[in-house]
Amino acid sequence: MKNYDVVIIGGGPSGIIVGVTGKKQNPDKSFLMIKEEEKGLVPCGIPYILHDLEDISKNAMGPKPFIDAGGDVLIDKVTKINILEKTLITENDNTFKYKKLVFATGSTPTIPTFIKGYDLEGVKYIKKSYNYIDELKNKTDKAKNIVIIGGGFIGVEVAEQLAKFKDKTVSLVEMEEFCLYRAFSKDIAKKIDEKLQNTEINLLTNNKVKEIIGENGKVTKVKLSNGKEIKADVVIFSIGYKPNTKLAKEAGLEITSQETIRCDNYLRTNKKDIYAIGDCSQTIGFITGRTDDIMLASTATSESRILGYNLFEINLIRNFIGTLSVFSTEIAGTTFASVGAIEQVAKKHDIEYIIGKFEDVDRHPGTIKDAKKLMIKLIASPKTGKIIGSELYGGKSAGEIINIISLAIQKETTVYELISFQVGTHPLLTTAPTKYVLIKAAEMVIANIKKTY
Amino acid sequence: MKNYDVVIIGGGPSGIIVGVTGKKQNPDKSFLMIKEEEKGLVPCGIPYILHDLEDISKNAMGPKPFIDAGGDVLIDKVTKINILEKTLITENDNTFKYKKLVFATGSTPTIPTFIKGYDLEGVKYIKKSYNYIDELKNKTDKAKNIVIIGGGFIGVEVAEQLAKFKDKTVSLVEMEEFCLYRAFSKDIAKKIDEKLQNTEINLLTNNKVKEIIGENGKVTKVKLSNGKEIKADVVIFSIGYKPNTKLAKEAGLEITSQETIRCDNYLRTNKKDIYAIGDCSQTIGFITGRTDDIMLASTATSESRILGYNLFEINLIRNFIGTLSVFSTEIAGTTFASVGAIEQVAKKHDIEYIIGKFEDVDRHPGTIKDAKKLMIKLIASPKTGKIIGSELYGGKSAGEIINIISLAIQKETTVYELISFQVGTHPLLTTAPTKYVLIKAAEMVIANIKKTY
Repeated sequence: MKNYDVVIIGGGPSGIIVGVTGKKQNPDKSFLMIKEEEKGLVPCGIPYILHDLEDISKNAMGPKPFIDAGGDVLIDKVTKINILEKTLITENDNTFKYKKLVFATGSTPTIPTFIKGYDLEGVKYIKKSYNYIDELKNKTDKAKNIVIIGGGFIGVEVAEQLAKFKDKTVSLVEMEEFCLYRAFSKDIAKKIDEKLQNTEINLLTNNKVKEIIGENGKVTKVKLSNGKEIKADVVIFSIGYKPNTKLAKEAGLEITSQETIRCDNYLRTNKKDIYAIGDCSQTIGFITGRTDDIMLASTATSESRILGYNLFEINLIRNFIGTLSVFSTEIAGTTFASVGAIEQVAKKHDIEYIIGKFEDVDRHPGTIKDAKKLMIKLIASPKTGKIIGSELYGGKSAGEIINIISLAIQKETTVYELISFQVGTHPLLTTAPTKYVLIKAAEMVIANIKKTY
Repeated sequence: MKNYDVVIIGGGPSGIIVGVTGKKQNPDKSFLMIKEEEKGLVPCGIPYILHDLEDISKNAMGPKPFIDAGGDVLIDKVTKINILEKTLITENDNTFKYKKLVFATGSTPTIPTFIKGYDLEGVKYIKKSYNYIDELKNKTDKAKNIVIIGGGFIGVEVAEQLAKFKDKTVSLVEMEEFCLYRAFSKDIAKKIDEKLQNTEINLLTNNKVKEIIGENGKVTKVKLSNGKEIKADVVIFSIGYKPNTKLAKEAGLEITSQETIRCDNYLRTNKKDIYAIGDCSQTIGFITGRTDDIMLASTATSESRILGYNLFEINLIRNFIGTLSVFSTEIAGTTFASVGAIEQVAKKHDIEYIIGKFEDVDRHPGTIKDAKKLMIKLIASPKTGKIIGSELYGGKSAGEIINIISLAIQKETTVYELISFQVGTHPLLTTAPTKYVLIKAAEMVIANIKKTY
């Protein structure tokens, strides 16, 4: 039995970052990462393998930074953990003794066992596995008719990519009125659907899947609840992810009602010297204060860095008031992003809010050649003026503007403070200083507070 | 004599924003703006008139938003103010009585009267005047040989634009070792010069102008202090701006040693009911705490908004601890930006500092087609960990990343807090979540603090 100071289960972004950070902070400690597959993927890059990146190898991400920092890696699967003895055993009968154990076991796609035909050949998922996605790409490359089920970020991005192939018919089925309805309010979600409709995607919102139909065990069609049938050589389900917590549960760790591992402020589970980070770890909504189910690589790596610094001694005090979901994506050339409590989240959790909107272009003057429309909606708490959420769309720089707002929320900035926010502006790069969208939206919030109270 | 509640002298960004904000907050008050020229310009767009925008009208900016809000505009020039009687008189003999008076008189280019030949025909400036720039464009359009003197932002941007014309020879003369040496430290300034050298610009750093040589009263050559002579049909001096404070001085307002109008936290001058904003108003360095000489439209509009809300009653409390210069520009396709106390500023003002650098690409994986290198340098105070400055370069999104850092400085964020900064990331829009440059640079600062202390 080999001894390690730290054993990390999982080699995704969480595992790599906690390994690199932890090892750099503690060069004299021994670190082992146990992961199931040799090769890994940049998770959010997966949709782009299917078209833009052309080749899966361009989206590879491995534990090299961790190995370079002095960590060991074992390709194997942990099958059992003995918490009292601080030992674990793997599928290939390797046994280890650990001082600190980190769960970074991630998540796997939800399998719709309730839909007839879900197990037919040709029914696929967006699994965060190199070999699986490699095989999926071979299949989609050859397919003529592809149906994607579920209009969340992954579904929309996969559909947008596959629809770029002129010789394929790509359908996207979404139960709700609009795609991305969890991350955007109605008016913005509508805009997203307009963009999708301008692509080659056959968009089917307000539609449920009734059955997957096959011949000789292979998928041929998707039947919708309205009776309509769509031809399909490949069906891709993207209806959510489930945290991988079977091993943790068997080991005796506390599990939340969201099926994630219960953790405290410092990512400590209810058992001493055992930690959980990333998709398998609990999240608490920054604004709502309630247990949440956010699974984002950016959230995961934030947790992993904190744990990396604090593994052996808490030296980075963390005033953690919750997980702020920051979303961004690009659809048919337009960036859409959101952060924090958007309108429907505020409503659902009985949070008083007021909004302010502003629209301009992302260059100045607007005659600059690559100028694109930039729209921002700011959501604030009327009594305190604190910003609680935002949605926006525009050119690519919206992908960083959302991070300005994310920092503003995390630093409890008010709309009143934004009036004197000192920004940098430049004709070729940003909105004009006279109407910088974030400040103007704050002004709109202030005007609306004045009107209402 | 006509009565106005508020008279604003000047119609640049400051004048427009204080007018619009003030009028919206006080719809029952009467507002008058007195400006010298009918048409105005987006100040930072001026260099781009000379090439990219093709036509000056595309960079026009007038007081329309102010007029729409209900303000009056008079094209005239204020010649005298009587502070005791609260009256003013103009060149065209209009007289007004005001309750509140706002100086938004801006700045004009420094004229190098100490250089022989400065007054020859063909020696020009980047004056913030529509008619002047219109005439300048006519001149540069026809010129074969253009010499720009002064490698600050304006000089560099003007040279970069004019050098895009294949049929012109454009030289840029800078006294210091590198261009933009006030906004960037040596290593980054060097990078900027490399970019400039890859354009058609004839870059002459470490060079002083000795004399402007002419024939029949018209410029023909520029003579450098090393004896070299450069052919010139047009010479453009961009060696700084002076605040327009003659009128304020004559009226009896207190003037600083920087020749700006002395103001307090709420932009109030030393005389009751008189205010000053923008280039003509004093600034105090955010980090240095000392009187500064920053002239930026973004700084000006920030002051104007605060004053607009507070003209008749202070209702937006301002905890103003100083002006944070946020610079951004694009040179030959690369964005360069800086904020706050960079190394030489910290050194000059005896501020203890430590730096952290990180470099990656602005997309992830780096194989995404439009990925560009992104480099960030973060400057922090080692005892508190507070961020005091930053420099960066990369693709266009760097223009908004600098605003994340600007907010971080304004909200007194520490490098330790940045470790758990929750960001949004996306393959087509940002760096990877595993190595988001701002967080990684913060880690480098922390590592360097640990090494040093």
